[in-house]
Amino acid sequence: MQPERLTIIGVGLLGGSIGLAIKSILTDCQIIGYGHRATTLDTAIQTGAIDRAAASLPDSVRSADLVILCTPVGIFPQVLSGIAPALKDGAVVTDVGSTKRSIVRQAHQILPARVRFVGSHPMAGSEKRGVEFARADLFQHALCITTPTEDTDPAALQQVEVFWRTIGMRTTRLTPDEHDRRLAEVSHLPHVVAAAMVAMQDDAALSLAGKGFLDATRIAGGDGGLWRDILLDNQDNLRQSITQLKATLDHVLSLLDAPHAGDLRSWLDAAANRRQALLQQKLREINPD
Amino acid sequence: MQPERLTIIGVGLLGGSIGLAIKSILTDCQIIGYGHRATTLDTAIQTGAIDRAAASLPDSVRSADLVILCTPVGIFPQVLSGIAPALKDGAVVTDVGSTKRSIVRQAHQILPARVRFVGSHPMAGSEKRGVEFARADLFQHALCITTPTEDTDPAALQQVEVFWRTIGMRTTRLTPDEHDRRLAEVSHLPHVVAAAMVAMQDDAALSLAGKGFLDATRIAGGDGGLWRDILLDNQDNLRQSITQLKATLDHVLSLLDAPHAGDLRSWLDAAANRRQALLQQKLREINPD
Repeated sequence: MQPERLTIIGVGLLGGSIGLAIKSILTDCQIIGYGHRATTLDTAIQTGAIDRAAASLPDSVRSADLVILCTPVGIFPQVLSGIAPALKDGAVVTDVGSTKRSIVRQAHQILPARVRFVGSHPMAGSEKRGVEFARADLFQHALCITTPTEDTDPAALQQVEVFWRTIGMRTTRLTPDEHDRRLAEVSHLPHVVAAAMVAMQDDAALSLAGKGFLDATRIAGGDGGLWRDILLDNQDNLRQSITQLKATLDHVLSLLDAPHAGDLRSWLDAAANRRQALLQQKLREINPD
Repeated sequence: MQPERLTIIGVGLLGGSIGLAIKSILTDCQIIGYGHRATTLDTAIQTGAIDRAAASLPDSVRSADLVILCTPVGIFPQVLSGIAPALKDGAVVTDVGSTKRSIVRQAHQILPARVRFVGSHPMAGSEKRGVEFARADLFQHALCITTPTEDTDPAALQQVEVFWRTIGMRTTRLTPDEHDRRLAEVSHLPHVVAAAMVAMQDDAALSLAGKGFLDATRIAGGDGGLWRDILLDNQDNLRQSITQLKATLDHVLSLLDAPHAGDLRSWLDAAANRRQALLQQKLREINPD
């Protein structure tokens, strides 16, 4: 069930961390890396994230049991086209993309029927980039969402889920539609809002920022190119989430009217309680006993 | 210049931490605490945050050189009225309130001319509440904003600033107007936004939240009553900041239109760079060498 030959395409923070994690657990899995920068691949070999680098995209996947796409979402079509002819029969292909509808559709259109694609979104990462920040424990206790459709091979789905669990993740399944709708709310909207709060400030206000503001805007430090791809790819859901946030802010404005002082307190208390319950839930997921 | 008798009114996280901090530095300063819960005052004595508890509000300030108001902003008028007749001539009164215009105005109206008020906002804290979370190092390297007006006694201003620097803070001066306008941007708006993002989610989305969402919404865990007071007290500035955020979100919506894909990237990059520069500035403030 576990891959003997694993190919990681795009050896950055996520790809490198997958390599380090799997090397620390499976001693007999050979890991081939592919990327467009030779220095990155050298670093990946030196740190033990991959065993060897392939000279070309087709070469990287020729004998692979499992291929994981870890490049930015925006170049998935060209990567899928590049590997399609070289994949061996029955190979399983998955990815780490932050959006899922377009990727699952592209894989279905571009990959031949003799290979099996399963969409994955391992929800781990950082605002940092690059294989030099890769860590074997990046995925520990985090959630990986797989996005099967009616075309997904059940055995391939199971194999991919076992893979993510092997490196310490919890797994859950959503349709690509559900995934993108919910991630707009808990990830893409918060990113836009954090960036907006940094962008809108004048320097005099920003110099007064404390720990609360730094925490609230940490995610805005993420790479602009990666996030442009994500936001454009999920723009219908993002537009809806932005509209919903604006409506919620209008509700707050109405609560600021004096006759509703008690309602403002109730609204703030409810949010604080919900945030507290969420924190407890997340702590239980990390430490179930 | 340093107080020999210090009164802390409201011995919670901030009041208790002030007591612990000053006791660790000035051995000859007597600290009197006042609060409405006997158990809190007992804990404060046991942990060494205060030397003794006063039986009444007037008693707590009778011989004090320096009085620090650490109660919620909403009850400042009644606290000021309670201490006004008992303060000794020349006593210095300051506070830790998160808004400053109304507090400075109330102090000017309620306190007699023989005592000297200086508005302070030590920007430290936590979403946790209560003297049991108090820490001597809570204020280390954090910024304290004092808000003098033309009525402020220069010697009292200097004494208050020296006090905050003694417990490890950096100090800066703003007018009460400037303080409230800028804090709406870097503190009160982020709180409302964090609460809104928690409040608007359905449970299915919230269960997918990762570390980014938890960090972005940490401040929403703060006490609803305290925050209602702050938001209502600064509602004119907050309304303006909410309006500005909504306009910024509308700008993002316009960038999501395909012809502007490059502009979206530039906007995200600019926010990421600004966040990175802010982080570096804050790290320099904590560690200037």
